[in-house]
Amino acid sequence: MATRYEKREAGINRSEIRAFTDFPSKGIVFRDICPILKDPEALAAIIDLFEERVRETCPGVELVVGLDARGFLFGPLLAQRLRVGFVLVRKKGKLPGPTASVAYTLEYGQAEAEIQEDAVEAGQKVVIIDDLLATGGTLYATCELMKKQKAKVLGCLVVIELKDLKGAGPNRTRVRVLPWSSTEGPLAPGGCSAFRSIPLRSWEHSFIPDVPAILNTFSTTTLRSTFLSSFR
Amino acid sequence: MATRYEKREAGINRSEIRAFTDFPSKGIVFRDICPILKDPEALAAIIDLFEERVRETCPGVELVVGLDARGFLFGPLLAQRLRVGFVLVRKKGKLPGPTASVAYTLEYGQAEAEIQEDAVEAGQKVVIIDDLLATGGTLYATCELMKKQKAKVLGCLVVIELKDLKGAGPNRTRVRVLPWSSTEGPLAPGGCSAFRSIPLRSWEHSFIPDVPAILNTFSTTTLRSTFLSSFR
Repeated sequence: MATRYEKREAGINRSEIRAFTDFPSKGIVFRDICPILKDPEALAAIIDLFEERVRETCPGVELVVGLDARGFLFGPLLAQRLRVGFVLVRKKGKLPGPTASVAYTLEYGQAEAEIQEDAVEAGQKVVIIDDLLATGGTLYATCELMKKQKAKVLGCLVVIELKDLKGAGPNRTRVRVLPWSSTEGPLAPGGCSAFRSIPLRSWEHSFIPDVPAILNTFSTTTLRSTFLSSFR
Repeated sequence: MATRYEKREAGINRSEIRAFTDFPSKGIVFRDICPILKDPEALAAIIDLFEERVRETCPGVELVVGLDARGFLFGPLLAQRLRVGFVLVRKKGKLPGPTASVAYTLEYGQAEAEIQEDAVEAGQKVVIIDDLLATGGTLYATCELMKKQKAKVLGCLVVIELKDLKGAGPNRTRVRVLPWSSTEGPLAPGGCSAFRSIPLRSWEHSFIPDVPAILNTFSTTTLRSTFLSSFR
């Protein structure tokens, strides 16, 4: 009998996540989520998965924090399901009023993730959402922003996780919900060792709620050189 | 007895649309929609209004087309309510695969709105959504894109319409659903005479479904010089 996750997977797989080679520049394989957005059943299935996972593993979440710009496509949908607010993290210079920002390293330079100072309160429990996790630079910076604001990050959610570019094929493109854990030691801005995730072999595995949250380190070495500046 | 629109208005007004002067540059009054996103009841009320208006006036809509990046915050929510797909119009260079684009004039230069060629099909009925209508340049370009793809624009939806900057105050910030009509004559790229809207005196007036769609021309002369390049 198909599990609820398998049923959801079937819904999502109807619309492929397409891969485009050499976009936006040579050597980059771009994962295109547009077909998901265009298929209302697939999009609903994605949000179902997010919602279930958050309800199971992030009790008491008070805000969904979404990343500019493709995190905006999924974040408000999840926030509405949970009946909580949605907060925008934007590229530097887009948000009015007093802001807090965190710089992070891209392959060729720096970028800054910014939030309005009054967007989150000290102690508030948040989950962070984006479309795709490649190097994790932006997600990491956002977690740092949350720390700065004394908010508590309960989890990070992404639609696609690029686990290993070398071996990447359609079967490597998975909807993921990442558990989040800060490492104890110091981390360089843009460093990704803070991202630790459940090994993913099937949908069901990835969503079993009682799997320990931290099992292995998310490896980004391979991805770093290729994807680093391409998705933001 | 309060109408359903008044009830919704009450919900939305709980979270103000904030105005920030001199952002992002001197002389600009920036309308900040973040408080709406942060208030789940207000956001739901906005989407309620959009949904009702579309159901009343845009029968048979097949796709919601949203503009980069704040149109992404509202578009997928509306699309899910209507159980139709969502299509992204992005700034030039962000979308992979074959694309179509339309250039439009900003105050100091040109911009391009781009869509994936296979995103809409000839004859498909679409509504276009964005957060704010100032000069209408981006919305106009998107309508032109839809024409290029032979899709039919049933309506344009914005959360905020800046009607007249000189007289702008809190009571000028309204949630609007714009009827859309192409003018017969030629239009310069970035020109806004294609935007004609219902005069707005109260919420109820703006949402009476049997008001003729084209009553007066949306005036953008005042806004053009000030807001032209500030919101994209």
